[in-house]
Amino acid sequence: MYFCELNAKVVAESKNISSRATLPEPTLRRLPWYLAYVQTLNTEEQPYVSSTQISKELNVDAAQIAKDLSFLNIRGKTRMGYDAAQLEQELSDFLGFKRAHDAVVIGCGSLGGALMGDLGLAQYGLHIVAGFDVNDAIVGTEICQTPIYHAKTLGEWQANHAAEIAILTVPANHAQAAADNVIACGIRAIWNFTPFRIKAPENVVIANTSIYAHLALIYNRMEGK
Amino acid sequence: MYFCELNAKVVAESKNISSRATLPEPTLRRLPWYLAYVQTLNTEEQPYVSSTQISKELNVDAAQIAKDLSFLNIRGKTRMGYDAAQLEQELSDFLGFKRAHDAVVIGCGSLGGALMGDLGLAQYGLHIVAGFDVNDAIVGTEICQTPIYHAKTLGEWQANHAAEIAILTVPANHAQAAADNVIACGIRAIWNFTPFRIKAPENVVIANTSIYAHLALIYNRMEGK
Repeated sequence: MYFCELNAKVVAESKNISSRATLPEPTLRRLPWYLAYVQTLNTEEQPYVSSTQISKELNVDAAQIAKDLSFLNIRGKTRMGYDAAQLEQELSDFLGFKRAHDAVVIGCGSLGGALMGDLGLAQYGLHIVAGFDVNDAIVGTEICQTPIYHAKTLGEWQANHAAEIAILTVPANHAQAAADNVIACGIRAIWNFTPFRIKAPENVVIANTSIYAHLALIYNRMEGK
Repeated sequence: MYFCELNAKVVAESKNISSRATLPEPTLRRLPWYLAYVQTLNTEEQPYVSSTQISKELNVDAAQIAKDLSFLNIRGKTRMGYDAAQLEQELSDFLGFKRAHDAVVIGCGSLGGALMGDLGLAQYGLHIVAGFDVNDAIVGTEICQTPIYHAKTLGEWQANHAAEIAILTVPANHAQAAADNVIACGIRAIWNFTPFRIKAPENVVIANTSIYAHLALIYNRMEGK
């Protein structure tokens, strides 16, 4: 019943570094739910929102919500709750959505190209500034005005641009080699969309979004109906 | 350290229905890793693969792998392991990737449109056959040859087409209403890409792929570096 898998060693290692870095994964998973809910409110009509109200909407225990929100720089008012507009700002800021994080897409095929065309990601602080591929047919072209370069030029490019995140959307059988290249070029966070389990040094953040695994889960649960 | 969240009630309910439906979620999460790994092998050069070998590559306990694979209709040979080509076939079949599942995209904006353009999903059994939106500027157009219809026509369309899965990519503040409409039209599985926690009857499968929550997790873990 969880939502993401991070490199376990990285998570363990990142403890004791700062109060934000020690944030429990379940809290990090729930905070975006609260943000999404608060964003649906009309804060002019409803300036305050209580943990009880959020609890009712999201089916999360109200005490748990209060505890999760205690990590933020916001305090609720007795019998009124949280200032809704402020809560939205604090959540968005706390989750890192208000700061631009430059990212590159490694593998600009169907999924990679699709992500390059997903303008919604920019609203969450992810700015895809370049794509890299080995296919000469697309190297030198653009997807949604984002240029595609040859993968062998990543090191040189990164030396001048210092992207923070590499989005890995290569075929699974190239995933490890592509990840190794990304790490050698100095990028320290990989968002892995391939179903392959890549290996990386402990100082690299790896987050796996296995959309094909989610599909398998949906198919399986549908069969039980 | 898990990868997806399903509607808890649905998972609980689906137990005791069939041996496949009772498949533990961690097993369902790992099977696609094995498939991705086996797909990287050249089965002509290496016709057999052992759980020990998979274990070494994926950092999963060999006994756990053998246990996971015991759900499949395949048995390893002593001192040789599994027939690699057969294992790939069985995994792909077992996970539902070989059967076509018709799906509709609800909300054909940037993310929805991107998924409609991701031809890779078809390789995993997901066939997006139509998109639905409320924006008159795109209703009547196509994305990658997939037609976009008005959301209010979903019921009529579904009566003739019987899609199995609705992919929800509307803005978060429309997520619940869109999900309610999908369910009213008779679609029984929702792949929710919005950060909103939608409510649904127990006989509806809900799988949440919260890519924005994954982003928050990456940002947070990067700060600890």
